[in-house]
Amino acid sequence: MSQEGLLRPGIAQLRVLDMDESITHYVDRLGLELVSKEADGRVYLKGYDEFHRHSVVLREADRAGIDYFAFKADSQESVDNFRRRIEEWGLAVDDVPAGEQPGVGPRIGFTIPSGHRIELFADMELSDDGPDTRNPYTWKTEPRGMRAQRMDHCLLYGPNIDQVEEFFTKVLDFHLPERVDLPDGTLAIWMTVSNKAHDIAFVKHDEPGKLHHLAFFLEDWNAIGNAADIMTRYDMSRDLGPTRHGITRGQTIYFFDPSGNRNEVFSGGYTAYKDHPTRIWDHNNVGRGIFYYERQLNEAFLSVVT
Amino acid sequence: MSQEGLLRPGIAQLRVLDMDESITHYVDRLGLELVSKEADGRVYLKGYDEFHRHSVVLREADRAGIDYFAFKADSQESVDNFRRRIEEWGLAVDDVPAGEQPGVGPRIGFTIPSGHRIELFADMELSDDGPDTRNPYTWKTEPRGMRAQRMDHCLLYGPNIDQVEEFFTKVLDFHLPERVDLPDGTLAIWMTVSNKAHDIAFVKHDEPGKLHHLAFFLEDWNAIGNAADIMTRYDMSRDLGPTRHGITRGQTIYFFDPSGNRNEVFSGGYTAYKDHPTRIWDHNNVGRGIFYYERQLNEAFLSVVT
Amino acid sequence: MSQEGLLRPGIAQLRVLDMDESITHYVDRLGLELVSKEADGRVYLKGYDEFHRHSVVLREADRAGIDYFAFKADSQESVDNFRRRIEEWGLAVDDVPAGEQPGVGPRIGFTIPSGHRIELFADMELSDDGPDTRNPYTWKTEPRGMRAQRMDHCLLYGPNIDQVEEFFTKVLDFHLPERVDLPDGTLAIWMTVSNKAHDIAFVKHDEPGKLHHLAFFLEDWNAIGNAADIMTRYDMSRDLGPTRHGITRGQTIYFFDPSGNRNEVFSGGYTAYKDHPTRIWDHNNVGRGIFYYERQLNEAFLSVVT
Amino acid sequence: MSQEGLLRPGIAQLRVLDMDESITHYVDRLGLELVSKEADGRVYLKGYDEFHRHSVVLREADRAGIDYFAFKADSQESVDNFRRRIEEWGLAVDDVPAGEQPGVGPRIGFTIPSGHRIELFADMELSDDGPDTRNPYTWKTEPRGMRAQRMDHCLLYGPNIDQVEEFFTKVLDFHLPERVDLPDGTLAIWMTVSNKAHDIAFVKHDEPGKLHHLAFFLEDWNAIGNAADIMTRYDMSRDLGPTRHGITRGQTIYFFDPSGNRNEVFSGGYTAYKDHPTRIWDHNNVGRGIFYYERQLNEAFLSVVT
Repeated sequence: MSQEGLLRPGIAQLRVLDMDESITHYVDRLGLELVSKEADGRVYLKGYDEFHRHSVVLREADRAGIDYFAFKADSQESVDNFRRRIEEWGLAVDDVPAGEQPGVGPRIGFTIPSGHRIELFADMELSDDGPDTRNPYTWKTEPRGMRAQRMDHCLLYGPNIDQVEEFFTKVLDFHLPERVDLPDGTLAIWMTVSNKAHDIAFVKHDEPGKLHHLAFFLEDWNAIGNAADIMTRYDMSRDLGPTRHGITRGQTIYFFDPSGNRNEVFSGGYTAYKDHPTRIWDHNNVGRGIFYYERQLNEAFLSVVT
Repeated sequence: MSQEGLLRPGIAQLRVLDMDESITHYVDRLGLELVSKEADGRVYLKGYDEFHRHSVVLREADRAGIDYFAFKADSQESVDNFRRRIEEWGLAVDDVPAGEQPGVGPRIGFTIPSGHRIELFADMELSDDGPDTRNPYTWKTEPRGMRAQRMDHCLLYGPNIDQVEEFFTKVLDFHLPERVDLPDGTLAIWMTVSNKAHDIAFVKHDEPGKLHHLAFFLEDWNAIGNAADIMTRYDMSRDLGPTRHGITRGQTIYFFDPSGNRNEVFSGGYTAYKDHPTRIWDHNNVGRGIFYYERQLNEAFLSVVT
Repeated sequence: MSQEGLLRPGIAQLRVLDMDESITHYVDRLGLELVSKEADGRVYLKGYDEFHRHSVVLREADRAGIDYFAFKADSQESVDNFRRRIEEWGLAVDDVPAGEQPGVGPRIGFTIPSGHRIELFADMELSDDGPDTRNPYTWKTEPRGMRAQRMDHCLLYGPNIDQVEEFFTKVLDFHLPERVDLPDGTLAIWMTVSNKAHDIAFVKHDEPGKLHHLAFFLEDWNAIGNAADIMTRYDMSRDLGPTRHGITRGQTIYFFDPSGNRNEVFSGGYTAYKDHPTRIWDHNNVGRGIFYYERQLNEAFLSVVT
Repeated sequence: MSQEGLLRPGIAQLRVLDMDESITHYVDRLGLELVSKEADGRVYLKGYDEFHRHSVVLREADRAGIDYFAFKADSQESVDNFRRRIEEWGLAVDDVPAGEQPGVGPRIGFTIPSGHRIELFADMELSDDGPDTRNPYTWKTEPRGMRAQRMDHCLLYGPNIDQVEEFFTKVLDFHLPERVDLPDGTLAIWMTVSNKAHDIAFVKHDEPGKLHHLAFFLEDWNAIGNAADIMTRYDMSRDLGPTRHGITRGQTIYFFDPSGNRNEVFSGGYTAYKDHPTRIWDHNNVGRGIFYYERQLNEAFLSVVT
C-alpha cells in the first residue's frame, strides 16, 4: 500500500519551433541535463535531481504545444489495471511499444475529455547521471542556471472540466486539493496523485488540448529570485512573477520558452493528503487564488496558451 | 491507488517534567497552537498548518521520553487490515477506545522489536483552527516564534533494527529512502509511507524504547536561521546546527526541550518515491550522512536520548 | 575623517489622514516601534534596529505627503558649516528650535529647487529601546510584522533636478551612484552620503514638493516575501513587487499607507563608494532600471505621488 | 566630507604554498575572477562585484600568512596627509612605487604595534571586467561557486591591541562598533572606516603579525548555505559554521584555503555609523559574541592562525 498505482508525472513531450534555441533555453537557462538527441530529432532532458532517464522530450514542429503528459506507475500490473478501468469509463486506449523512447517500456495512451493525450507507463531506465545512491552529495556537479531540480507538473486548458475531474479522481485515483467554483460551474481544478500540492491541473477553455504551462521545481524563494535575475539578464520572455499562488501556496514565475510555450519555475507548495479538505475558491477571490500578491488575473492568464 | 493505508505521523505523545515550561517551549518558541488542556493534565498541541485537531500530546511525568508515536490511516478498514497483518507478523495488538484523547477515534497499539509503542488510528476531528478551506490565506494569523508548520517525524533508538525495518516495510508498507550499513550490520534506517523523505527513522541502540528527537517542519533555510536566532535569544539548549543532513538533505537544528527531549526543526528534504533506489551510507561516510557540513558525528548524537 | 558632515536620513515627517489607521499600518504591519504620541497629536516611530529616539513622525492633516526629510549630521559644527554653504549657494535657511520634537536638538531647514523642505540636525537622544550595547542579542524582542529594521531613504518628485543634483553633491557632499539620462535631460538621480546605494533620490516632475515613496529596510529577499504575504493577508494596497530594482539592485515592494503615501520595503542594494563610477541609464532601459524583472514602468510609477 | 580619507580595504596580499591549488580554491570555489598572473609569479584576483582591477594578491611562499593589508584612500592628498599623521604618531613609513603591482599607483606602508604591515594607496585602475556602468545588469556573467562579491575585511592577531585601537581611531579615523573587554583588558576590537560593520578587526595574541582570516562578502544567508554545500562537495577544510556572529551580526562560515589560511564567507552585518555607541562584550559572553548560535568559542578560534 502506501502510494499505489500512479506515482508521478514521468514524461512531458513538448513541441518546439527551433531545437537549438530550445536547448539553450532548457539546458543553459533552466539548468536541465541534456540526456540525448535521437535520430528522429527528438531531444531528451532531465532535472539534476531526477533518478530516471528523462522527464522532458522536445520535438521540433511547426506549432508549439504539448503532445502528451505521461504518468509513471509503480508496476505494469497497475498499468494493465488502469487500462481496464479507463476503457470501462469509456475512453479508447492505444498502445505505444517499448522503445518508442529510449529506455522506456510500453506505454498506454488515451485522449481525455479536455482533448489532451495522457499516457501511463511503468518502466523507465534509471539514469547514469541521477543522484548518487552510495554516500551521496546533495548534488554531484554544481547546478546550473535556474537550478531546476525536476519536471514537476503541468496546467492544461480545455473543455469538459467536470468530466476530467471525475476521470482523474475516479479512474486514476487522484485527489483534489483545490478547485475554483464560479457561479456557472467549475473553472479550474488542481489534482495530485501524491503528497505534492498538485501533479496536474486544468482550466476550463473552449479550445481543446491546450497547454498553459509546464512547471519545474526549484529549491525555494531564493531560487525563484535567482531565476528572475537570469530571465532579465538573457532577456527571456516573462509573463508574471516572482509572486506566490494562493492555490498551492507555491512561489512562482511564469515565463515563455522561445517557441511560446509557457514555463513555470515553482517552489514550496504545501504537503497534500487525501484526508485534507478540498480548498474552494469563488469568483470574487480567484484572482488572489492564482496570483496571491497581485490579487487579480493578468490578461495573459486566461488567453495565452499553446 | 494513490496513497493507501497509512497517511502520515498523526500523534506523538511526549513525557515532560514541567508542563508550564513545556508550554512556553512548544507554544511560544516553536510556535505550535495550544489546542486544549484536559482534566487528566495532558496538553494538546498542533502546528498552524495542520488540518486535524492535534498532533502533539504532552504528559507530565517524572522522566522524559516518548509514550508512543501514532500514524493516521485513511480508513478504519485499513486499520483493521493492519491489525490482522501485525498479528500475523507476531506482535500483540491492544485497543485504545475512542475518546481516550479528545476528538480521536479508536486506536490500536503494539510494541515493536525496538521497544517502542506504535499506534494506528483512522479518525480525528478536523480542527476549528486549521487552514481555511474557503478562499484561504497562506496563514490566518501571523506564525509565531520558529513558525513550526507541523509535527513532521521522529527518530527512535532501540535494538533489533533489522526486524524493525522488516516490520515497517513488509507489514506497514513503508519504503526505505536511506540506510547506514556498518561492517557489522545496519546502524540506522529512514523510512517513509509518503513522498516525504522520512516519516520515521531508527538508530540501533542497546536500550529499548528511546527517543532521539521529535521533528517539526519549517518553511526553508531562512526559517532555520530564524529558529537559531530564537534559540540564542532565549538561551535554549542547542545540540547542533544550523546544518544540513546528507541523509534526506534536510536543513536542521537539533535542540532540547526543557525536559531534555531533543527536538529538531527541519526544512527541505527531497521528494521520495518508492521506485527510487535506497541510498546507502557506509561507516566512512556516516558522519557526513548525519551532519553534512561537519562531516562527523558529535558525541551527543549516539549517546543523548530520552 | 571617515564619514564627515552628514551621516544619514534622520527624520521623515509624513502627513496622514487618519492617525489610528496609520498606527496600525506602521506599527502592526511594518513593525515599527511606537515611541510616543505627543500633545500636538504627532506620533513618533522608530525601527527596532535604530539607536536614536525616532526616525518617522506622523502628523494628521487633510492631505497626505511629506512635510520634510531631515539628515542627521555628526556635529553642530557641521550643521553650522552647512548653513553657511547653503546660504552661499543661495537658499534661505530657517531655524527650528531644540525641543520642537521631543529629544531633538536645534534643526535648520530650507526649501530646495524641487520644492521640498530639507532639514539638518546634529543632536537626537538615544532611544531607551534601541539595540543593546552590552552583550547584545541580534534583537531584544522578536521583530513584528514586516520586521522593518529602519527608515532607509525617500524618493521625491519635483522640478529642477539638475539644480537638486548640484545642491546635494556640491553643497551637502553627497555622491551619485546612479542617474537616468533621457535625450532631453536628466530624469532621475540617486544620491548617497554614505555607503548605502542611496539615501535620497529625485525624479523630475512638474509639480513641486511631491513624495513618491518612503522606504524601510528589511533583512533580505525572504523578508520581502514575508512582507508580501502580510500585504495580502491584511488586504493592503500594493503598487508593484516583489521585484528588484536595476538601479541600486535593491529587492522591493511598493505599496501604500492608508493615506495613500507610497511606502517601500527594500533589501539588499550594493555598497557604494565615491570612487565608483556613476551608473547611467538611458531611455531605452529606464524600465529595466526601475523594475528589473518587469523591464517596463507601470503607469503608477510616474503619476501617483502625494 | 561624506566619506573622507580612507574608503575601504583595497588589497590583501596572501602567502600561499601552492599556486595551482590556490587558484582552484579562490577562483573555482570562492568564485573570484582571475585578473592576471604576473612574471614574478604573483596572481591577482577580484570579486565579480568590484570595480577596481584587483583586491587579492596571492604570492607563493614557504609559509602561509598575510604580507600586508592595504586601504584605498580617496586621493593622493589624503595619503600624504595620513603619512604625516602616522609619522607624528611615531611609526616609520616607507614607499612602494607605482607599478609594483599592475595598475596600482604609489603606496605607503608601515608596521603597526601588532606586527602587521598596513599600506595606503589612492590610485588603482578600474577593471575592464567590473560591473557595467551603462544600463547595468545585476551581474554580467552568472556568478560562480560561492559567488563571492568582494574581498570584505580581515581579522588579524597580534600584541598591543590598545595601541592598535588608538592608531586606527586617532590616526586613520576609524570608529569602533564593537569591543571585547576582559577583566585584564581588551581582547578584541572591530573597526570600520565606512558604514560596514567592520573593515578590519584585531584579537590580542602573543605572536605578532598573524592572520586569523580574510573574509569575502556573499549576498545573504542562502548564499552561506550554498557555500557550505560547496565546501562539503569538494571536501574543503571547514572550521565552523554556518552560524552567526553576535559581533557584527554577520552570517558566516570559517574555512581554510589549501595553504591553511583561514577564509570567511560573510553576509549581513548591520550598518554602522560613528554616532552609534560601541557595543561591549564581557568575558562571560564572548563565546556568544563570536559564535552566536554555539555560544562558546571552539579551540581553533584562539589558536589557529597563519
